Amino acid sequence: MPLHYAVKTRLVELLDRLGEGAALPPERALAAEFGVSRWTMRQAIRELVADGRLRARQGQGTFVATPKLIQPLALVSYTEALRAQGQTPGREVVTFDEIAADVELAGGLGIGEGEPVHRLERVLSADGQPIGLETTYLSVARFPALRAVLEPTGSLYRCLTDQLGVRFAEGEELVETVIATPREAELLKATQSLPMLLLHRNSRDTDGRPIEVVRSLYRGDRVGFRATLRP
Amino acid sequence: MPLHYAVKTRLVELLDRLGEGAALPPERALAAEFGVSRWTMRQAIRELVADGRLRARQGQGTFVATPKLIQPLALVSYTEALRAQGQTPGREVVTFDEIAADVELAGGLGIGEGEPVHRLERVLSADGQPIGLETTYLSVARFPALRAVLEPTGSLYRCLTDQLGVRFAEGEELVETVIATPREAELLKATQSLPMLLLHRNSRDTDGRPIEVVRSLYRGDRVGFRATLRP
Repeated sequence: MPLHYAVKTRLVELLDRLGEGAALPPERALAAEFGVSRWTMRQAIRELVADGRLRARQGQGTFVATPKLIQPLALVSYTEALRAQGQTPGREVVTFDEIAADVELAGGLGIGEGEPVHRLERVLSADGQPIGLETTYLSVARFPALRAVLEPTGSLYRCLTDQLGVRFAEGEELVETVIATPREAELLKATQSLPMLLLHRNSRDTDGRPIEVVRSLYRGDRVGFRATLRP
Repeated sequence: MPLHYAVKTRLVELLDRLGEGAALPPERALAAEFGVSRWTMRQAIRELVADGRLRARQGQGTFVATPKLIQPLALVSYTEALRAQGQTPGREVVTFDEIAADVELAGGLGIGEGEPVHRLERVLSADGQPIGLETTYLSVARFPALRAVLEPTGSLYRCLTDQLGVRFAEGEELVETVIATPREAELLKATQSLPMLLLHRNSRDTDGRPIEVVRSLYRGDRVGFRATLRP
Protein backbone atom coordinates (compact mmCIF):
# COMPACT_ATOMS: atom_id res chain seq x y z
CA MET A 1 0.00 0.00 0.00
CA PRO A 2 1.47 3.40 -0.99
CA LEU A 3 2.45 5.44 2.05
CA HIS A 4 0.30 8.46 1.10
CA TYR A 5 -2.75 6.18 1.02
CA ALA A 6 -2.07 4.85 4.53
CA VAL A 7 -1.77 8.51 5.61
CA LYS A 8 -5.03 9.33 3.79
CA THR A 9 -6.84 6.55 5.66
CA ARG A 10 -5.57 7.85 9.01
CA LEU A 11 -6.50 11.43 8.03
CA VAL A 12 -10.10 10.35 7.29
CA GLU A 13 -10.39 9.13 10.89
CA LEU A 14 -9.05 12.49 12.07
CA LEU A 15 -11.60 14.39 9.91
CA ASP A 16 -14.43 12.31 11.38
CA ARG A 17 -13.26 13.29 14.87
CA LEU A 18 -12.78 16.99 13.98
CA GLY A 19 -16.24 17.34 12.38
CA GLU A 20 -17.57 19.48 9.51
CA GLY A 21 -16.16 22.96 9.17
CA ALA A 22 -13.19 22.37 11.49
CA ALA A 23 -9.78 23.65 10.42
CA LEU A 24 -7.18 21.04 9.50
CA PRO A 25 -3.92 21.44 11.47
CA PRO A 26 -1.01 22.76 9.35
CA GLU A 27 0.60 20.32 6.91
CA ARG A 28 3.94 20.62 8.70
CA ALA A 29 2.46 19.70 12.09
CA LEU A 30 0.49 16.78 10.64
CA ALA A 31 3.56 15.44 8.82
CA ALA A 32 5.54 15.53 12.08
CA GLU A 33 2.70 13.89 14.03
CA PHE A 34 2.29 11.09 11.45
CA GLY A 35 6.04 10.68 11.03
CA VAL A 36 6.00 11.20 7.24
CA SER A 37 7.46 13.73 4.83
CA ARG A 38 5.59 16.93 4.02
CA TRP A 39 5.44 15.73 0.40
CA THR A 40 3.59 12.56 1.43
CA MET A 41 1.22 14.53 3.67
CA ARG A 42 0.55 17.01 0.83
CA GLN A 43 -0.32 14.18 -1.57
CA ALA A 44 -2.80 12.68 0.94
CA ILE A 45 -4.38 16.10 1.55
CA ARG A 46 -4.66 16.79 -2.21
CA GLU A 47 -6.56 13.54 -2.73
CA LEU A 48 -8.93 14.34 0.14
CA VAL A 49 -9.56 17.75 -1.44
CA ALA A 50 -10.29 16.09 -4.81
CA ASP A 51 -12.61 13.60 -3.05
CA GLY A 52 -14.52 16.50 -1.46
CA ARG A 53 -13.62 15.50 2.13
CA LEU A 54 -11.44 18.59 2.65
CA ARG A 55 -11.90 22.05 1.24
CA ALA A 56 -9.00 24.46 0.64
CA ARG A 57 -9.89 28.13 1.00
CA GLN A 58 -7.36 30.45 -0.59
CA GLY A 59 -5.34 32.22 2.10
CA GLN A 60 -7.40 30.72 4.90
CA GLY A 61 -6.25 27.12 5.15
CA THR A 62 -7.93 23.75 4.74
CA PHE A 63 -11.20 22.71 6.37
CA VAL A 64 -13.28 19.58 6.86
CA ALA A 65 -15.87 19.79 4.06
CA THR A 66 -19.63 19.48 4.31
CA PRO A 67 -21.16 16.60 2.28
CA LYS A 68 -21.53 17.03 -1.48
CA LEU A 69 -24.67 18.68 -2.79
CA ILE A 70 -26.81 16.14 -4.63
CA GLN A 71 -28.58 17.61 -7.65
CA PRO A 72 -31.34 15.73 -9.49
CA LEU A 73 -30.75 14.69 -13.08
CA ALA A 74 -34.08 16.11 -14.24
CA LEU A 75 -35.53 19.00 -16.22
CA VAL A 76 -35.93 21.19 -13.15
CA SER A 77 -34.58 24.56 -12.19
CA TYR A 78 -31.18 24.60 -10.55
CA THR A 79 -32.46 27.01 -7.90
CA GLU A 80 -35.36 24.82 -6.75
CA ALA A 81 -33.08 21.82 -6.26
CA LEU A 82 -30.60 23.83 -4.20
CA ARG A 83 -33.26 25.52 -2.04
CA ALA A 84 -34.66 22.06 -1.25
CA GLN A 85 -31.27 21.29 0.30
CA GLY A 86 -31.29 24.45 2.42
CA GLN A 87 -28.74 26.28 0.27
CA THR A 88 -28.94 29.80 -1.14
CA PRO A 89 -28.49 29.56 -4.92
CA GLY A 90 -26.73 32.26 -6.92
CA ARG A 91 -25.95 32.92 -10.58
CA GLU A 92 -23.31 35.24 -11.97
CA VAL A 93 -23.38 36.06 -15.68
CA VAL A 94 -20.02 35.57 -17.41
CA THR A 95 -21.17 35.84 -21.05
CA PHE A 96 -24.49 36.65 -22.72
CA ASP A 97 -23.97 37.10 -26.42
CA GLU A 98 -24.79 35.73 -29.88
CA ILE A 99 -22.59 33.33 -31.78
CA ALA A 100 -22.88 31.47 -35.11
CA ALA A 101 -23.87 27.80 -34.76
CA ASP A 102 -21.11 25.31 -35.50
CA VAL A 103 -22.02 21.88 -36.90
CA GLU A 104 -22.58 20.36 -33.45
CA LEU A 105 -24.77 23.19 -32.14
CA ALA A 106 -26.75 23.32 -35.38
CA GLY A 107 -27.47 19.61 -35.05
CA GLY A 108 -28.46 19.89 -31.41
CA LEU A 109 -30.74 22.88 -31.96
CA GLY A 110 -32.22 21.74 -35.27
CA ILE A 111 -31.01 24.83 -37.15
CA GLY A 112 -28.60 25.48 -40.00
CA GLU A 113 -24.86 25.86 -39.57
CA GLY A 114 -23.92 29.52 -39.14
CA GLU A 115 -27.36 30.56 -37.87
CA PRO A 116 -27.37 32.83 -34.78
CA VAL A 117 -27.44 31.27 -31.31
CA HIS A 118 -27.87 32.87 -27.87
CA ARG A 119 -24.98 31.88 -25.60
CA LEU A 120 -25.56 32.35 -21.87
CA GLU A 121 -22.66 31.40 -19.61
CA ARG A 122 -23.18 31.63 -15.86
CA VAL A 123 -21.33 30.62 -12.71
CA LEU A 124 -23.72 28.81 -10.37
CA SER A 125 -23.12 29.11 -6.66
CA ALA A 126 -24.42 27.62 -3.42
CA ASP A 127 -24.19 29.78 -0.30
CA GLY A 128 -21.81 32.06 -2.18
CA GLN A 129 -19.36 29.29 -3.22
CA PRO A 130 -19.05 28.60 -6.97
CA ILE A 131 -20.07 25.03 -7.77
CA GLY A 132 -20.79 25.01 -11.50
CA LEU A 133 -20.32 26.75 -14.83
CA GLU A 134 -23.36 26.42 -17.06
CA THR A 135 -23.41 27.39 -20.73
CA THR A 136 -26.79 27.33 -22.48
CA TYR A 137 -27.31 27.67 -26.22
CA LEU A 138 -30.70 28.58 -27.76
CA SER A 139 -31.75 29.45 -31.30
CA VAL A 140 -32.17 33.21 -31.85
CA ALA A 141 -34.72 32.56 -34.61
CA ARG A 142 -36.83 30.52 -32.20
CA PHE A 143 -36.39 32.85 -29.19
CA PRO A 144 -35.93 36.35 -30.67
CA ALA A 145 -37.32 38.01 -27.51
CA LEU A 146 -35.01 36.19 -25.08
CA ARG A 147 -32.60 39.08 -24.52
CA ALA A 148 -35.51 41.45 -23.92
CA VAL A 149 -37.34 39.30 -21.36
CA LEU A 150 -34.66 37.30 -19.51
CA GLU A 151 -33.26 38.74 -16.31
CA PRO A 152 -29.77 37.22 -16.86
CA THR A 153 -29.23 36.16 -13.22
CA GLY A 154 -32.77 34.74 -12.96
CA SER A 155 -34.14 31.29 -13.77
CA LEU A 156 -33.90 30.56 -17.49
CA TYR A 157 -36.36 27.67 -17.16
CA ARG A 158 -38.93 29.91 -15.49
CA CYS A 159 -38.46 32.57 -18.20
CA LEU A 160 -38.85 29.99 -20.98
CA THR A 161 -41.96 28.40 -19.50
CA ASP A 162 -43.74 31.40 -17.96
CA GLN A 163 -42.82 34.17 -20.42
CA LEU A 164 -42.07 32.38 -23.68
CA GLY A 165 -44.63 29.55 -23.46
CA VAL A 166 -42.16 26.67 -23.78
CA ARG A 167 -43.37 23.28 -22.55
CA PHE A 168 -40.48 20.98 -21.58
CA ALA A 169 -41.18 17.33 -22.40
CA GLU A 170 -37.93 15.39 -22.19
CA GLY A 171 -34.21 15.61 -22.40
CA GLU A 172 -31.07 13.57 -22.62
CA GLU A 173 -28.04 14.13 -20.42
CA LEU A 174 -24.53 12.76 -20.81
CA VAL A 175 -22.37 12.70 -17.67
CA GLU A 176 -18.61 12.36 -17.76
CA THR A 177 -15.57 13.43 -15.79
CA VAL A 178 -12.99 15.85 -17.23
CA ILE A 179 -10.13 18.09 -16.15
CA ALA A 180 -11.16 21.77 -16.19
CA THR A 181 -9.40 24.25 -18.45
CA PRO A 182 -7.43 26.96 -16.60
CA ARG A 183 -10.22 29.49 -17.41
CA GLU A 184 -12.90 27.16 -16.05
CA ALA A 185 -10.87 26.38 -12.92
CA GLU A 186 -10.43 30.11 -12.29
CA LEU A 187 -14.16 30.85 -12.73
CA LEU A 188 -14.94 28.00 -10.32
CA LYS A 189 -12.23 29.17 -7.86
CA ALA A 190 -10.69 25.69 -7.89
CA THR A 191 -7.27 25.79 -6.26
CA GLN A 192 -5.98 22.64 -7.96
CA SER A 193 -6.82 20.61 -11.05
CA LEU A 194 -9.89 19.00 -9.46
CA PRO A 195 -11.85 16.35 -11.32
CA MET A 196 -15.02 17.92 -12.68
CA LEU A 197 -18.36 16.44 -13.71
CA LEU A 198 -19.31 17.56 -17.21
CA LEU A 199 -22.97 17.33 -18.26
CA HIS A 200 -24.15 17.71 -21.84
CA ARG A 201 -27.90 18.27 -22.08
CA ASN A 202 -30.33 18.37 -25.00
CA SER A 203 -33.99 19.05 -24.22
CA ARG A 204 -37.12 19.00 -26.35
CA ASP A 205 -40.62 20.43 -26.02
CA THR A 206 -43.94 18.61 -26.17
CA ASP A 207 -43.88 18.88 -29.99
CA GLY A 208 -40.47 17.17 -30.08
CA ARG A 209 -38.66 20.35 -31.13
CA PRO A 210 -35.19 21.03 -29.65
CA ILE A 211 -35.22 23.75 -26.97
CA GLU A 212 -31.64 24.06 -25.80
CA VAL A 213 -28.18 22.60 -25.74
CA VAL A 214 -26.46 22.92 -22.35
CA ARG A 215 -22.89 22.24 -21.26
CA SER A 216 -22.55 22.31 -17.47
CA LEU A 217 -19.33 21.81 -15.62
CA TYR A 218 -19.64 21.04 -11.91
CA ARG A 219 -16.94 20.85 -9.25
CA GLY A 220 -16.54 17.14 -8.58
CA ASP A 221 -15.55 17.85 -4.97
CA ARG A 222 -18.80 19.70 -4.26
CA VAL A 223 -21.56 18.16 -6.36
CA GLY A 224 -23.04 14.75 -7.15
CA PHE A 225 -26.10 13.81 -9.20
CA ARG A 226 -29.08 11.58 -8.55
CA ALA A 227 -31.00 9.74 -11.24
CA THR A 228 -34.20 7.73 -11.05
CA LEU A 229 -33.86 4.45 -12.93
CA ARG A 230 -36.37 2.37 -14.85
CA PRO A 231 -35.90 -1.09 -16.38
CA MET B 1 -2.45 30.63 -19.69
CA PRO B 2 -0.27 27.94 -18.06
CA LEU B 3 2.33 26.57 -20.46
CA HIS B 4 1.23 22.94 -20.07
CA TYR B 5 -2.30 23.96 -21.14
CA ALA B 6 -1.01 25.63 -24.32
CA VAL B 7 0.91 22.41 -25.00
CA LYS B 8 -2.23 20.36 -24.31
CA THR B 9 -4.21 22.41 -26.84
CA ARG B 10 -1.53 21.83 -29.49
CA LEU B 11 -1.38 18.13 -28.63
CA VAL B 12 -5.16 17.79 -29.19
CA GLU B 13 -4.65 19.04 -32.76
CA LEU B 14 -1.88 16.47 -33.20
CA LEU B 15 -4.15 13.66 -31.88
CA ASP B 16 -6.89 14.66 -34.34
CA ARG B 17 -4.36 14.37 -37.19
CA LEU B 18 -2.92 11.04 -35.94
CA GLY B 19 -6.32 9.37 -35.56
CA GLU B 20 -7.66 6.75 -33.13
CA GLY B 21 -5.29 4.00 -32.12
CA ALA B 22 -2.15 5.74 -33.39
CA ALA B 23 0.94 5.72 -31.16
CA LEU B 24 1.96 9.04 -29.62
CA PRO B 25 5.60 9.94 -30.38
CA PRO B 26 7.92 9.63 -27.34
CA GLU B 27 7.65 12.34 -24.68
CA ARG B 28 11.28 13.38 -25.24
CA ALA B 29 10.77 13.89 -29.00
CA LEU B 30 7.52 15.81 -28.46
CA ALA B 31 9.11 18.07 -25.82
CA ALA B 32 11.95 18.89 -28.24
CA GLU B 33 9.52 19.51 -31.12
CA PHE B 34 7.30 21.82 -29.01
CA GLY B 35 10.30 23.54 -27.40
CA VAL B 36 9.20 22.80 -23.82
CA SER B 37 10.59 20.82 -20.89
CA ARG B 38 9.84 17.13 -20.53
CA TRP B 39 8.09 17.98 -17.24
CA THR B 40 5.68 20.32 -19.03
CA MET B 41 5.04 17.77 -21.78
CA ARG B 42 4.44 15.05 -19.16
CA GLN B 43 1.85 17.22 -17.38
CA ALA B 44 -0.01 17.88 -20.66
CA ILE B 45 0.02 14.16 -21.52
CA ARG B 46 -1.21 13.19 -18.03
CA GLU B 47 -4.21 15.52 -18.38
CA LEU B 48 -5.04 14.08 -21.81
CA VAL B 49 -4.89 10.58 -20.30
CA ALA B 50 -7.23 11.69 -17.48
CA ASP B 51 -9.58 13.26 -20.06
CA GLY B 52 -9.66 9.98 -21.98
CA ARG B 53 -8.05 11.43 -25.14
CA LEU B 54 -4.88 9.38 -24.72
CA ARG B 55 -4.48 5.91 -23.32
CA ALA B 56 -1.30 4.65 -21.63
CA ARG B 57 -0.63 0.95 -22.02
CA GLN B 58 1.91 -0.39 -19.55
CA GLY B 59 5.16 -1.16 -21.30
CA GLN B 60 3.74 -0.34 -24.73
CA GLY B 61 3.54 3.44 -24.82
CA THR B 62 0.73 5.95 -25.21
CA PHE B 63 -1.96 5.84 -27.87
CA VAL B 64 -4.76 8.03 -29.23
CA ALA B 65 -7.85 6.75 -27.43
CA THR B 66 -11.17 5.71 -28.89
CA PRO B 67 -14.21 7.70 -27.68
CA LYS B 68 -15.61 6.95 -24.23
CA LEU B 69 -18.20 4.20 -23.91
CA ILE B 70 -21.58 5.68 -23.04
CA GLN B 71 -23.59 3.48 -20.66
CA PRO B 72 -27.26 4.12 -19.96
CA LEU B 73 -28.32 5.06 -16.43
CA ALA B 74 -31.09 2.46 -16.35
CA LEU B 75 -31.94 -0.89 -14.77
CA VAL B 76 -30.50 -2.85 -17.67
CA SER B 77 -27.78 -5.45 -17.89
CA TYR B 78 -24.26 -4.16 -18.32
CA THR B 79 -23.65 -6.69 -21.09
CA GLU B 80 -26.60 -5.63 -23.25
CA ALA B 81 -25.53 -1.99 -23.18
CA LEU B 82 -21.97 -2.84 -24.18
CA ARG B 83 -22.98 -5.23 -26.97
CA ALA B 84 -25.20 -2.47 -28.40
CA GLN B 85 -21.99 -0.43 -28.80
CA GLY B 86 -20.18 -3.24 -30.62
CA GLN B 87 -17.99 -4.16 -27.63
CA THR B 88 -17.35 -7.59 -26.14
CA PRO B 89 -18.27 -7.45 -22.45
CA GLY B 90 -16.42 -9.45 -19.82
CA ARG B 91 -16.68 -10.02 -16.07
CA GLU B 92 -14.00 -11.30 -13.74
CA VAL B 93 -14.96 -12.31 -10.22
CA VAL B 94 -12.79 -10.75 -7.52
CA THR B 95 -14.87 -11.63 -4.45
CA PHE B 96 -18.03 -13.68 -3.90
CA ASP B 97 -18.61 -14.14 -0.20
CA GLU B 98 -20.94 -13.36 2.68
CA ILE B 99 -20.52 -10.46 5.07
CA ALA B 100 -22.53 -9.05 7.97
CA ALA B 101 -24.60 -5.97 7.09
CA ASP B 102 -23.33 -2.68 8.53
CA VAL B 103 -25.82 0.09 9.32
CA GLU B 104 -25.74 1.51 5.79
CA LEU B 105 -26.20 -1.85 4.02
CA ALA B 106 -28.93 -2.89 6.46
CA GLY B 107 -30.82 0.34 5.67
CA GLY B 108 -30.38 -0.07 1.92
CA LEU B 109 -31.47 -3.71 1.90
CA GLY B 110 -34.26 -3.38 4.46
CA ILE B 111 -32.70 -5.93 6.83
CA GLY B 112 -31.30 -5.83 10.35
CA GLU B 113 -27.75 -4.81 11.17
CA GLY B 114 -25.46 -7.85 11.31
CA GLU B 115 -27.67 -9.99 9.07
CA PRO B 116 -25.85 -11.89 6.29
CA VAL B 117 -25.34 -10.28 2.90
CA HIS B 118 -24.02 -11.71 -0.38
CA ARG B 119 -21.12 -9.61 -1.65
CA LEU B 120 -20.23 -10.03 -5.33
CA GLU B 121 -17.31 -7.94 -6.58
CA ARG B 122 -16.46 -8.13 -10.28
CA VAL B 123 -14.19 -6.33 -12.70
CA LEU B 124 -16.17 -5.36 -15.80
CA SER B 125 -14.31 -5.19 -19.09
CA ALA B 126 -14.94 -4.08 -22.65
CA ASP B 127 -12.95 -5.81 -25.40
CA GLY B 128 -10.65 -7.18 -22.68
CA GLN B 129 -9.87 -3.78 -21.10
CA PRO B 130 -11.07 -3.27 -17.50
CA ILE B 131 -13.50 -0.36 -17.31
CA GLY B 132 -15.36 -0.82 -14.03
CA LEU B 133 -15.40 -2.48 -10.62
CA GLU B 134 -18.89 -3.42 -9.54
CA THR B 135 -19.78 -4.57 -6.02
CA THR B 136 -23.33 -5.83 -5.48
CA TYR B 137 -24.88 -6.59 -2.08
CA LEU B 138 -28.01 -8.73 -1.68
CA SER B 139 -29.76 -10.14 1.37
CA VAL B 140 -28.94 -13.82 2.00
CA ALA B 141 -32.31 -14.30 3.73
CA ARG B 142 -34.11 -13.05 0.63
CA PHE B 143 -31.90 -14.85 -1.90
CA PRO B 144 -30.70 -18.03 -0.12
CA ALA B 145 -30.30 -19.87 -3.46
CA LEU B 146 -28.14 -17.22 -5.12
CA ARG B 147 -24.81 -18.98 -4.68
CA ALA B 148 -26.31 -22.20 -6.03
CA VAL B 149 -27.85 -20.72 -9.17
CA LEU B 150 -25.62 -17.78 -10.18
CA GLU B 151 -22.84 -18.42 -12.67
CA PRO B 152 -20.51 -15.80 -11.11
CA THR B 153 -19.25 -14.38 -14.42
CA GLY B 154 -22.77 -14.31 -15.91
CA SER B 155 -25.47 -11.65 -15.82
CA LEU B 156 -26.73 -11.11 -12.27
CA TYR B 157 -29.82 -9.29 -13.57
CA ARG B 158 -30.72 -12.22 -15.84
CA CYS B 159 -30.23 -14.67 -12.96
CA LEU B 160 -32.41 -12.58 -10.64
CA THR B 161 -35.21 -12.13 -13.15
CA ASP B 162 -35.18 -15.49 -14.98
CA GLN B 163 -34.17 -17.87 -12.18
CA LEU B 164 -35.22 -16.13 -8.98
CA GLY B 165 -38.41 -14.43 -10.21
CA VAL B 166 -37.40 -10.87 -9.28
CA ARG B 167 -39.30 -8.10 -11.04
CA PHE B 168 -37.27 -4.84 -11.18
CA ALA B 169 -39.49 -1.76 -10.87
CA GLU B 170 -37.29 1.25 -10.15
CA GLY B 171 -34.02 2.37 -8.72
CA GLU B 172 -32.08 5.39 -7.62
CA GLU B 173 -28.52 6.10 -8.67
CA LEU B 174 -26.08 8.62 -7.25
CA VAL B 175 -23.20 9.66 -9.51
CA GLU B 176 -20.07 11.33 -8.22
CA THR B 177 -16.39 11.56 -9.03
CA VAL B 178 -13.73 10.15 -6.67
CA ILE B 179 -10.07 9.16 -6.61
CA ALA B 180 -9.65 5.36 -6.68
CA THR B 181 -7.95 3.56 -3.81
CA PRO B 182 -4.65 1.84 -4.74
CA ARG B 183 -6.44 -1.55 -4.72
CA GLU B 184 -9.18 -0.27 -7.03
CA ALA B 185 -6.67 1.39 -9.37
CA GLU B 186 -4.72 -1.88 -9.59
CA LEU B 187 -7.85 -3.93 -10.33
CA LEU B 188 -8.78 -1.42 -13.06
CA LYS B 189 -5.19 -1.38 -14.41
CA ALA B 190 -5.11 2.41 -14.09
CA THR B 191 -1.55 3.65 -14.52
CA GLN B 192 -2.11 6.95 -12.70
CA SER B 193 -4.61 8.33 -10.19
CA LEU B 194 -7.33 8.82 -12.79
CA PRO B 195 -10.63 10.48 -11.85
CA MET B 196 -13.27 7.77 -11.49
CA LEU B 197 -17.05 7.87 -11.69
CA LEU B 198 -18.62 6.28 -8.63
CA LEU B 199 -22.24 5.10 -8.85
CA HIS B 200 -24.29 4.09 -5.82
CA ARG B 201 -27.44 2.20 -6.79
CA ASN B 202 -30.48 1.04 -4.83
CA SER B 203 -33.17 -0.86 -6.70
CA ARG B 204 -36.62 -2.06 -5.71
CA ASP B 205 -39.06 -4.64 -7.06
CA THR B 206 -42.67 -4.16 -8.12
CA ASP B 207 -43.75 -4.64 -4.48
CA GLY B 208 -41.45 -1.82 -3.39
CA ARG B 209 -39.03 -4.17 -1.62
CA PRO B 210 -35.27 -3.46 -1.84
CA ILE B 211 -33.44 -5.85 -4.21
CA GLU B 212 -29.82 -4.76 -4.12
CA VAL B 213 -27.30 -2.14 -3.15
CA VAL B 214 -24.59 -1.61 -5.77
CA ARG B 215 -21.37 0.37 -5.68
CA SER B 216 -19.82 0.68 -9.14
CA LEU B 217 -16.58 2.43 -9.87
CA TYR B 218 -15.92 3.26 -13.53
CA ARG B 219 -12.77 4.58 -15.17
CA GLY B 220 -13.55 8.22 -15.92
CA ASP B 221 -11.24 8.14 -18.95
CA ARG B 222 -13.18 5.27 -20.56
CA VAL B 223 -16.84 5.58 -19.57
CA GLY B 224 -19.61 8.18 -19.52
CA PHE B 225 -23.30 7.81 -18.64
CA ARG B 226 -26.50 8.85 -20.38
CA ALA B 227 -29.72 9.70 -18.56
CA THR B 228 -33.18 10.40 -19.92
CA LEU B 229 -34.69 13.45 -18.24
CA ARG B 230 -38.28 14.35 -17.38
CA PRO B 231 -39.65 17.64 -16.01
